[in-house]
Amino acid sequence: MIKAGIIGASGYAGNEVLRLLLMHPEVEVTGIGSHSYLGQKVSDLYPSFYQICNLVFEEDDEVIKNADIVFAGLPAGISEKYAKACLDAGKKFIDLGADFRLDSEAEYEKWYGKAYDFKDLHEKQVYGLPELHREEIKNANLIGNPGCYPTTVNLGLYPLLKEHYYKDTKIIVDSASGTTGSGKKLTEDTHFTKTNESYHPYKAGNHRHMPEMEQELSKVAQEKMYVTFVPHLLPVNRGIVSTIYVTLKDDVTLEDVYKTYVDTYKDEQFVRVLPLGKNADLKFVQYTNYCDISLHYDEHDHTLIIASTIDNMVKGTAGQAIQNMNLMFGLKENTGLNFVGPSF
Amino acid sequence: MIKAGIIGASGYAGNEVLRLLLMHPEVEVTGIGSHSYLGQKVSDLYPSFYQICNLVFEEDDEVIKNADIVFAGLPAGISEKYAKACLDAGKKFIDLGADFRLDSEAEYEKWYGKAYDFKDLHEKQVYGLPELHREEIKNANLIGNPGCYPTTVNLGLYPLLKEHYYKDTKIIVDSASGTTGSGKKLTEDTHFTKTNESYHPYKAGNHRHMPEMEQELSKVAQEKMYVTFVPHLLPVNRGIVSTIYVTLKDDVTLEDVYKTYVDTYKDEQFVRVLPLGKNADLKFVQYTNYCDISLHYDEHDHTLIIASTIDNMVKGTAGQAIQNMNLMFGLKENTGLNFVGPSF
Amino acid sequence: MIKAGIIGASGYAGNEVLRLLLMHPEVEVTGIGSHSYLGQKVSDLYPSFYQICNLVFEEDDEVIKNADIVFAGLPAGISEKYAKACLDAGKKFIDLGADFRLDSEAEYEKWYGKAYDFKDLHEKQVYGLPELHREEIKNANLIGNPGCYPTTVNLGLYPLLKEHYYKDTKIIVDSASGTTGSGKKLTEDTHFTKTNESYHPYKAGNHRHMPEMEQELSKVAQEKMYVTFVPHLLPVNRGIVSTIYVTLKDDVTLEDVYKTYVDTYKDEQFVRVLPLGKNADLKFVQYTNYCDISLHYDEHDHTLIIASTIDNMVKGTAGQAIQNMNLMFGLKENTGLNFVGPSF
Amino acid sequence: MIKAGIIGASGYAGNEVLRLLLMHPEVEVTGIGSHSYLGQKVSDLYPSFYQICNLVFEEDDEVIKNADIVFAGLPAGISEKYAKACLDAGKKFIDLGADFRLDSEAEYEKWYGKAYDFKDLHEKQVYGLPELHREEIKNANLIGNPGCYPTTVNLGLYPLLKEHYYKDTKIIVDSASGTTGSGKKLTEDTHFTKTNESYHPYKAGNHRHMPEMEQELSKVAQEKMYVTFVPHLLPVNRGIVSTIYVTLKDDVTLEDVYKTYVDTYKDEQFVRVLPLGKNADLKFVQYTNYCDISLHYDEHDHTLIIASTIDNMVKGTAGQAIQNMNLMFGLKENTGLNFVGPSF
Repeated sequence: MIKAGIIGASGYAGNEVLRLLLMHPEVEVTGIGSHSYLGQKVSDLYPSFYQICNLVFEEDDEVIKNADIVFAGLPAGISEKYAKACLDAGKKFIDLGADFRLDSEAEYEKWYGKAYDFKDLHEKQVYGLPELHREEIKNANLIGNPGCYPTTVNLGLYPLLKEHYYKDTKIIVDSASGTTGSGKKLTEDTHFTKTNESYHPYKAGNHRHMPEMEQELSKVAQEKMYVTFVPHLLPVNRGIVSTIYVTLKDDVTLEDVYKTYVDTYKDEQFVRVLPLGKNADLKFVQYTNYCDISLHYDEHDHTLIIASTIDNMVKGTAGQAIQNMNLMFGLKENTGLNFVGPSF
Repeated sequence: MIKAGIIGASGYAGNEVLRLLLMHPEVEVTGIGSHSYLGQKVSDLYPSFYQICNLVFEEDDEVIKNADIVFAGLPAGISEKYAKACLDAGKKFIDLGADFRLDSEAEYEKWYGKAYDFKDLHEKQVYGLPELHREEIKNANLIGNPGCYPTTVNLGLYPLLKEHYYKDTKIIVDSASGTTGSGKKLTEDTHFTKTNESYHPYKAGNHRHMPEMEQELSKVAQEKMYVTFVPHLLPVNRGIVSTIYVTLKDDVTLEDVYKTYVDTYKDEQFVRVLPLGKNADLKFVQYTNYCDISLHYDEHDHTLIIASTIDNMVKGTAGQAIQNMNLMFGLKENTGLNFVGPSF
Repeated sequence: MIKAGIIGASGYAGNEVLRLLLMHPEVEVTGIGSHSYLGQKVSDLYPSFYQICNLVFEEDDEVIKNADIVFAGLPAGISEKYAKACLDAGKKFIDLGADFRLDSEAEYEKWYGKAYDFKDLHEKQVYGLPELHREEIKNANLIGNPGCYPTTVNLGLYPLLKEHYYKDTKIIVDSASGTTGSGKKLTEDTHFTKTNESYHPYKAGNHRHMPEMEQELSKVAQEKMYVTFVPHLLPVNRGIVSTIYVTLKDDVTLEDVYKTYVDTYKDEQFVRVLPLGKNADLKFVQYTNYCDISLHYDEHDHTLIIASTIDNMVKGTAGQAIQNMNLMFGLKENTGLNFVGPSF
Repeated sequence: MIKAGIIGASGYAGNEVLRLLLMHPEVEVTGIGSHSYLGQKVSDLYPSFYQICNLVFEEDDEVIKNADIVFAGLPAGISEKYAKACLDAGKKFIDLGADFRLDSEAEYEKWYGKAYDFKDLHEKQVYGLPELHREEIKNANLIGNPGCYPTTVNLGLYPLLKEHYYKDTKIIVDSASGTTGSGKKLTEDTHFTKTNESYHPYKAGNHRHMPEMEQELSKVAQEKMYVTFVPHLLPVNRGIVSTIYVTLKDDVTLEDVYKTYVDTYKDEQFVRVLPLGKNADLKFVQYTNYCDISLHYDEHDHTLIIASTIDNMVKGTAGQAIQNMNLMFGLKENTGLNFVGPSF
């Protein structure tokens, strides 16, 4: 049994990792950490765990000490020291936050307002999107688990970009996310009476997940790609739909694109390319590790429209982290992740 | 592996049985039946199954022929012939509908407008609430799976009634259910714009689940109990909360009641008696087989208030059916049902 | 034009009074007060007022000075001094909170933890439910505007109690309210991810609105009535449905009751007794000053079921306050309140 | 008093026109038509009208006969004959549907599958977007009331296009609409359990509102503009947000654009340009005739992002129709439309 610890376990990301690990056949959760809830039972904070999980939030050191692998659900900028402690002690570390996602320290500093404290740590980091970086993940000890929005976008564009079907390096990404993406913290914008029956963009053209998208997409395309990214807050709990707009090369048809997508993902369990004519809908990926992709075409101005959807807490966070863990420990990649999603 | 078939599999109840059985380690689903969708793939109707389940809706006879056990999600009044066919062929049958729940044919006829076609079949029927009828279920071949509302009420009142803590045989049950309880059929009342931001009672004092409650409660109390039952439609997908009002005997305290509930259910995995001071919330049982019960007391008029909540599609339908199946086949009762519920 | 001021105007109650007064043909809003948002524009806090209302939150004294009537949306226990200041200055005062609703200081102290500071003020208070106390309201300068839940219950039971159709003085009230009832304050329980797809009782048998119900119902019945009251939090923004259970006298029929209700309310614009067979639904009173009542009967145990629904922010708060103001100033009672409710 | 009739009054568009006209001080609704509900009271179909409106659905001829102006909420393709009948009888006609919106019969036939029956009728049609076509509307007898999506897009882009601030004639429009946009008809996609907690694109790149956008935008720009339009279904009742992406000319700044928008709309009551830094949110236009616009800028690839939001049933349908009616009859344009929107 793999011994897993979670620090920052009182937040939504940590909570979902805990939930999924409790159902994972090869893992024992050996500890959960929290500063704010130290000494409290997780089931007091999250009653769905009542009589299922008796863990009590404890000190981070304790959590790390007892674990083979540590998952961290922390605010931006404070994961490094925990990662260092883990790696120094020969343990593996998966950061659910943004501290190990960006290759460029300058970009990190620009978007997160802070330089790296342990620069060489970042040479070991691997971007944990298994469908694109599987082999590196297998050998990694330090994973930057991808952001939720970038997961939809990177999976949604990968086949197109690797085949260079696009005419223009500028891509529009219009996304909508459920409120779990905003986490546990109480805010005016996630107060029920405000969010309910509401919909609006936020951080339009200025969201931290944009550099992460451009980094990965540019690598695939082998040239600099530009993304205009606008997220919206959706009055649902879980799920992201990203609707992506790309101008196609003149001689590329929707059928070409579709064939490439099906081909590219034919051996990927967790990416489902929907038949042409279907619409990706977050409804059908909720509570699963799937990314569903549907393809559409506006022929009158030769625009490809890609709809890519995930459960932001599963494929967008905890499920993907466990997929990474499975790879890192040599387990079958889908172990503990074969949920059949509810139809309603 | 147990071979399981589902007839009426295109409806919500059948769909949820299918979903849970696909994750059950000891079951193979050998067939699914539907008249309306004959020949279609279930994943066309319910896209969450895409690339997970390739089953095609087929004729009921075919489904029955290939199965050891048949689950039926049919409208009231048409299960009998399928049950008979199964039992005659040495198979087991679990009716998700109401045809095998009532002991009294007269009551059945009063509420469902139809006499029994095969009277002796009903002598073999067992009311499939494992916490109350476990031993009979183990030996049964024909199960009337309880209604969703009665499951909350019967579990919520069982300890109180068996101890005769009530002063009065009249009980008020005020319930609220998510829309999955209304099923797949399109109706004015489940049109999104109508249901959303709405709440209202329906069939107040006149719902078919009432006789089922009175039957079971009267058995426990060993005297005739009277239930006034009013369900309400709730703008959520899943879950029922029943709030139950009983006048306590003068010398019974909340602590007495609480102790009895904890004691009664201490070995029942799927019934959680919440600590005093907590409120049962459908949020924390969704997508699980749990029934959560919280106890409250209005001292100024000596009224016990019991809140009892389940996921109507799991403990209220498919999960309970599988719990019954596990008992009927000698499996561990919780096999395939150990879901850790999402916190959000 | 009546000059109206609102103190505690940044909260939901004050906000809704402001919104309705801005559409009232006989009123000019002369000032709005807030401590937390002093100096800010109301349209910054509530963007629906952008370019419609340029008022800035100012000191309470200023608000009072410029007004003929002051509405107060304050936490329990601090309205008295403002009421005194207004009455001393010859102005009228409508308290949207609970400080002037209870006749008994002992009851007030029991439920709100505080004795009265200005006892003689309370001799002038009038309980502002126009359908029951119209004549006193016309002559009042100090109104305790009713609680939202009690409005549904008192209107829902008034005809029954005045005719003494009940067999038993004990009444069960099961209510469900939208989240605006919890106000602007951010809480764990009104965080979107928690509230959405949730339903649960709170303060079961122990809510502050209970004594207010018993006070008014006992006056109508001319004997002590007992109410067991359990509110639930509903994942909608606006509206309350109270489902009320009363055992009828043996010789009273549903038709008798219905006739009495229709008769009692035939001249009341804002109380609609629905035809028998219909279900009161908060959907159809949202954004209006109506209270809709439907009557149901469980003949097998002789129980009358009354469903009574309002928009908690309109008939439950601001609309009712304006109805009171209209009466106090000799206007037509429905002035500024003739909204035709949206069907969706 | 203007005598107004509504045909197709049982649908959502007709219903909302009726609701608003019942509150209009200068209008008497003289008749409502419906084929499916002929002879029924509108308050039976829509209980919010109970005791407010006693109108009964009657034959279209009767409705037309008694009216000075007729509003038509009919499926595409059948308004022409009613329009002709009205105009021949010297009455005015506002079509809430699509039959009088497109200038080009060829485009109409392409998107709606039908040629015009009465070609010369279309020479008299005026596109009823008051902010762009006010003077023509004043003199019109036949109005094609704009589509809901095009209203957001045409108002959202008008200032930008008339100043030729765009670099490229290709515009991306990503919209999300509440379910009232899908109307009263029961569909799988608007069944509560399906829509709730769901979000997905539909008719991506292939929606009938696209030609209407291109027609109006091209007129403003005085060159052919191209729109890629993808609508999404949002789990709310009312409201559209369109997020619009345009590449700006190199020397145009966000401040230039903002100034132009403020200037352009400074005398338009129903278009509110939000301060820079704010996000348009459908929440704050619901139940009003406002269109709120917020402007955002992604400097790294010089993209302007425009968020434009309306209540699809008011500014998107019924409110706009009444705004047109007011102009056609020489009333103040905002008569009956000065709703202060709810903050929650």
